[in-house]
Parts: sequence; structure tokens; C-alpha cells
Amino acid sequence: MNTFFNPERSTWPQLLQRPTQTIGDIEETVNHVFEKVTQQGDRALREFTQKFDQVEIQHFAVSETEFNEANHQISADLKNAISLAKQNIESFHKAQKLGKCVVETSPGVLCWQEARPIEKVGLYIPGGTAPLFSTILMLAVPAVIAGCKEIVICSPPDKNGHIHPAILYTASVCGIKKIFKVGGIQAIAALTFGTESIPSVYKIFGPGNQFVTVAKQLATRHGVAIDMPAGPSELLVVADETANPAFVAADLLSQAEHGKDSQVLLVATCRILIDKVIGEVASQIDALPRKAIAEKAMENSRFIFVENKETAIDLINAYAPEHFIIQARHEDFYANHIINVGSVFIGPYTPESAGDYASGTNHTLPTNGFARQYSGVNLDSFTKKVTFQKISKKGIQQIGGAIEIMAETEGLQAHRNAVTLRINE
Amino acid sequence: MNTFFNPERSTWPQLLQRPTQTIGDIEETVNHVFEKVTQQGDRALREFTQKFDQVEIQHFAVSETEFNEANHQISADLKNAISLAKQNIESFHKAQKLGKCVVETSPGVLCWQEARPIEKVGLYIPGGTAPLFSTILMLAVPAVIAGCKEIVICSPPDKNGHIHPAILYTASVCGIKKIFKVGGIQAIAALTFGTESIPSVYKIFGPGNQFVTVAKQLATRHGVAIDMPAGPSELLVVADETANPAFVAADLLSQAEHGKDSQVLLVATCRILIDKVIGEVASQIDALPRKAIAEKAMENSRFIFVENKETAIDLINAYAPEHFIIQARHEDFYANHIINVGSVFIGPYTPESAGDYASGTNHTLPTNGFARQYSGVNLDSFTKKVTFQKISKKGIQQIGGAIEIMAETEGLQAHRNAVTLRINE
Repeated sequence: MNTFFNPERSTWPQLLQRPTQTIGDIEETVNHVFEKVTQQGDRALREFTQKFDQVEIQHFAVSETEFNEANHQISADLKNAISLAKQNIESFHKAQKLGKCVVETSPGVLCWQEARPIEKVGLYIPGGTAPLFSTILMLAVPAVIAGCKEIVICSPPDKNGHIHPAILYTASVCGIKKIFKVGGIQAIAALTFGTESIPSVYKIFGPGNQFVTVAKQLATRHGVAIDMPAGPSELLVVADETANPAFVAADLLSQAEHGKDSQVLLVATCRILIDKVIGEVASQIDALPRKAIAEKAMENSRFIFVENKETAIDLINAYAPEHFIIQARHEDFYANHIINVGSVFIGPYTPESAGDYASGTNHTLPTNGFARQYSGVNLDSFTKKVTFQKISKKGIQQIGGAIEIMAETEGLQAHRNAVTLRINE
Repeated sequence: MNTFFNPERSTWPQLLQRPTQTIGDIEETVNHVFEKVTQQGDRALREFTQKFDQVEIQHFAVSETEFNEANHQISADLKNAISLAKQNIESFHKAQKLGKCVVETSPGVLCWQEARPIEKVGLYIPGGTAPLFSTILMLAVPAVIAGCKEIVICSPPDKNGHIHPAILYTASVCGIKKIFKVGGIQAIAALTFGTESIPSVYKIFGPGNQFVTVAKQLATRHGVAIDMPAGPSELLVVADETANPAFVAADLLSQAEHGKDSQVLLVATCRILIDKVIGEVASQIDALPRKAIAEKAMENSRFIFVENKETAIDLINAYAPEHFIIQARHEDFYANHIINVGSVFIGPYTPESAGDYASGTNHTLPTNGFARQYSGVNLDSFTKKVTFQKISKKGIQQIGGAIEIMAETEGLQAHRNAVTLRINE
């Protein structure tokens, strides 16, 4: 843990710096895989899966038998938990539906906006030891609500050629049966270009390791969209003397266990609290199965004391955290003044875990300072906003003159003509 | 003009193909300019402006005197037109404000979403013979409504080191005084990295030539966001026997005059109409000052006859046009079934020009088939959606169990602990 007391504003940029990501080396690998998959389709996918996942896959699509087996392998308790989480995520994302709002901007000039689903989307779900089935809920639920017609999931197979049953069960509960056993760069290539087995999509969502992240970024050069650029997960807690040090420590550790490069920050307006939290971290960390990872992340964590809440919020906005927990008396002050953030957790009983799994908000959020300009995944991420207008004969008389002179000034006579013809009819 | 009658569906992909953009050569130039601007700041901007715009610029910022001069150079008629357009754009984009919608997903679990402005945005406005002051309205008006704190405009200077007065006047009417005389790749570099004169921003908006387009695309690799990828402008008109051929021809020509690479399509369910429109185009095109450009674009245009409206809408969704005009009896059918589109213009008195300038909708729209996955610029483009949650002691009891078992299954014990501690308090 690194502690800082009243750091000078001039030192903030360095204090809040994130580790820089280098994509140089990876880019070459990505381009190679992209080229092979474009040329050879499934054959290339098989070769790369053999090479990177050490398993031979004949049929990429998960079979009905596999779905049935997964269903039997999941406990009733986990099924109930997934069901509760799904309900909450559904009700929160349904509430984000855009109402049709017609505005008569001038008499006879009707303008409105409507959402349309992105017809084909691809969801990437990482494999490995921890099966991130919660991410399926976070991506599939809004995709279904948005009305996406084709929803495809790619996830890497394990050494035996299987996908974790929790992933298959959750996908199937969401109504998604198109799951393909392919991961890494080759999965992103398949979703971008399409192969014999796997359809190409218009937008790719989901987390992944640095290879997947770079592959998604480079895929945008081939006409596909992505949810957002990615980096290591982050948590910033602001706390004062009213905060429960055990809760604060538990929240910081829940972030630290994600990975060695996880970003963990505590901003406190109370010096004693910092000491107490350090003590709590020391006592809680020992029981964690992922202790080694958490320890490494905590080594790079930053505990910062500032004099008052005004300085605190400036510092927090300068960092732009993915997750922001408020455990302080002036909750409303922080909630109202935070600008650069992915998701905000207010009060002592609102751990980040709640939003990660079951409260209803989305856990796919902007990291690496991208909260300055990107939203987390929400219903909008699966739709496009289309504008419509319908102008009456009277309406074009109202605004036609303005259009004519503006078009003429821009040197676009044909734009003007299209109006003049109608006015003079 | 190329006409097609009842083309086979299998031929659609080729029929609807757009010219491919090659960014290879340009990429090298962009990387060179980016590197120089990062290293040398304003000095590099001066050098590139000398080289590409053939003018020496000492002070990039437009002065108060220049704003005043511009104000005197704009006619009262044009000022009134800009004022009307601005009002309509304002009322349509204000209506897009997100209401705060609190959802209690489980008892004691409150979740909501709020919009936050992107604090720093850069607007690129092309120069050249046609001063695109209308684009300032389309970008600056929603930026101001969204509450962006720092709004910066870059636009290339002419050979005398000036920016067109219509651009300066419009910016100043929108309340924007930070305009810099710099264009092309070097402008995008300045907005991405910042220089002594020009602040870096979080998101860059606006149209431009292929150099600007590639520069924006590559800028995303340096942590900045952009409005959307770009390509040549497009218009698709669907028409039946009720359509006025003169109006249809005028609309097609208004697209054709944009550039030689403009995409112009007519989809008709009436054969005779196609002949009539061809006749009208021939008679209208002669009077156009930009006739040569329009002729070239019309050479590549496609007039497609299909048997019925069902085939028509499938074809149109397959193309995903930026602008879509409906001049046909079954307006509602087309409006309800269009999915892949930027903006829709309904009925005989709704030319594309209306949306380009003054009806209130935005004219910054997805081209090149990107309407499949991108929205046009709207109020959201200048904001981020942030989620908030506040859970009570009772609330965490409600959903805590589900979080615990899900976290455990994902192998994230510290995530579980953060909940368990609170439940057991």
C-alpha cells in the first residue's frame, strides 16, 4: 500500500497514473490470426484453438446434449441466484427503454427519435478457471430486451473441449443457444469476418485478456463496432470517519483479487480511517484463496488523505474510476458532483459485488480513465437511435426560406433546389 | 445511372457494395504528423499548416476582432436563417434529455441512471470553398445542452489565414469562442495530444476529408473517442407511382452534388417512375453550379426496380442508408420496418435538405453501412450514462445470498466476503 497525505495538485497526474498498455507486439499476432481466419475460416479456427487452447475442436457449436448436461450440473441454489439476478437486471434495463418523443419544432415540422436494435451482436465470454457466467447476464439480458435478432456467444473450450456448465446454463436461461467453442483472437476474428460455422456480427461485446482486448480494438478497422476499449478493473472508495473500516477493506480486496494489475484506491478525509483500513486489509487478506493476486494488487494500491470533500471530488473526477463507492456522511455531495465514473455505489450496504452480480445495474464498465468519455454497457449499447421527420406542405413553407439561404451560402445549389421546387409547387 | 430490374437476392451484396476505402498510405502520414505534434506542439502545427494549407499562422486562436468582423459580414437574412435552424435543433435535442428513472429492483435495492456531460469535446469543421457552418449548429448545440464544459473548434485557415465568417458567426452564436485555425491531420493531433495553444479533449466530432477521417480513426488508439467512423455521404429514396418525379430527382441531385463519390440510390416499385425520374434528373442537372460533380456521382448511382414493398424494405435494410426518403403510399410500412438507417424523411414535403439544415434533427449520421451499428450524433453523443445504486441493510439481506453463491462459483471469494460481512453485521 502506498499512502499519500495531502498531495499537491501538481502531483495528481502522476499519482493517478495507470500502467500503460503496450499493444505493439500483440498487434502483429492479431493481424496474422485475422488474415488466416479470413482466408481459411473454420480450418484456421481449429488450428489456432489447437495451438492456443491445446484442444482439438471438430464442431464449434455447443450441442443440445451439452446444454442438457449443463442443466443437470447446476445446483438449485445457483439456479435460484441466477434467476434473481436476471430478474433485477431485466427490470433495470427494461426501464431504460426510450419513449417515442415527437417534437413539432416549427408548425408542420414533426421530428422524432426511435431506437432500433442492432440486428447481429457477438458476446465474448472468457473461459479459464473462473467461469464468468455473470457477464452473460449483463450482455445477453439487454441484447434480448433491445430486440437483437441474432445473438452469438463465443467462449474458449477447456482442455477437454468443454465450456463450463454455468456458462451454458446461464446462456440457455437467457434464450441463447448459439454458443461456439472458440476463444481468444480467433474468436474475435470469427465474429468480425464470419466463417462456415460462425456468423459475422455488427458489434462485439465482452471482456477478455490483453489479446482479446487488442483484437477487439483492431476489429473496428474492419467495419465492426465494439462495446468499449478495455483495461484492468478499478475501484475507488471515498470514506470519512463514519465509514466502517472492515467494509472498506472488504471492498478494496474484492477489487484486488481480480488481477495483479487491478487498480485499488482509497481517498479518505480522515487520517485514522486509513490506519484502520490498513489493519483490516491485513487481517482479511489471509483467508482469501486468491491471496497472492490480492497482495500484489494491494502493493500497487494508493491510499490518499485529503483535507476536505471538495478536494476529494476533484481528485476522484481526475482519476475517473470504473467503480466508485461512497462511504461517507456527505453521500449526496459526492453523488451529485461525480462526473467521470462508470458506476456509483452509495452507502455502507452497497458493496461493488452487488453491482457485479445481482442488483440490476450492468457490470461492463469503462476502465483505464475511459469513464471520461464512454458509458458502461446499457440498453442503448444494443440499439441505434434513428431520427425521423415528416414535414407538411405548410411546414416546408415555414422553414424553406431558412434552408434555401443556408444551402446557398454553403455553395450547395441542389440542396436549395430540393426545397424551392416544393415551395413553388 | 445504372438501372436494375428485379435483381436476384443473391446479387444484392454486389449491387449494394460501396467503394472500399484504403487507409494504408494515409496511415503512415497520420502517424508521422501525430509524432511530430506530440514532440513539438505548436511548432509542428505551424509547419504542417504551412505545408498543407500554404499559409503561415502565428496565433492559432481566432481573436475577438475577427469575431466582430465576421458579425458585420453576415447578412441579416442569413442571421435569421441560422437563428431559426438553431431554435429547431435546440428544441429537438433538448427533448432527448434523459429523465432520472429510479428502479427498486428488489426491496431496498435502488438503481438509477443519470447522464453526465463529457467535459472536453473538440469539433472539427472542414474549410474549403463551402463553409460548413451548419455542422457547427449540429455539434455545438447538443454539446452546450449536454453541459460540456470545454468546447473547442478547429477549422483550417484559407490562404489568407482566415476562417470563413459564417463559421465564426455561427460558433459565436452558439457561445463558442475557442476556435483555432488549424485543419487536417494536424488538427486531430492537436485535439488528441494537446499543444501549447490547443487543449486536448476527450472526444472528437465532425466530418472531414479522408485524411481527417483516418486521423480520427487512429486517434482512438491514443485514448480519445470519436463520434463515428465515416465514409462518403449517401441517400436512398424509395418511391412508388404516387411520387412526384421532380421531387425525387431534386433529392437525388442534392446528394449527388456533395462529391463524386456520393452514393445515390433509387428503389422504385413502379417502372414508369424510374423513366420519369431519369428525365427530371437530365433537365435539372444542367442548372447546377456543381454539375460536374453531380454528373459523376449520378454515373455511379443505382436505380433499382423491385416488385413490391416487402422486397424493397429488405433491400433497403441490406444497404443501411445514411439518409432514407420515403415518397410512397405506404409510408408507415417503410417507417415501421426500417432498421438499418441513419435518418428517415417521410412524405413529399420532407427533402433531405430540411434535416441537413433546419428541421431540428442532426445531420451527422452514419455512412458506409455503419447505420447497422451506430447512431447518428444526438444528445447522448455528448454525455455518458452513469449508473447509481443505494442498497439498504434490508436490501443487502434480500440479494446478498444470490451474490454470495454467484461470487463463489466464479471463484471470487473476496467478492463474497464484502457481502457476508455486511449480512452478518
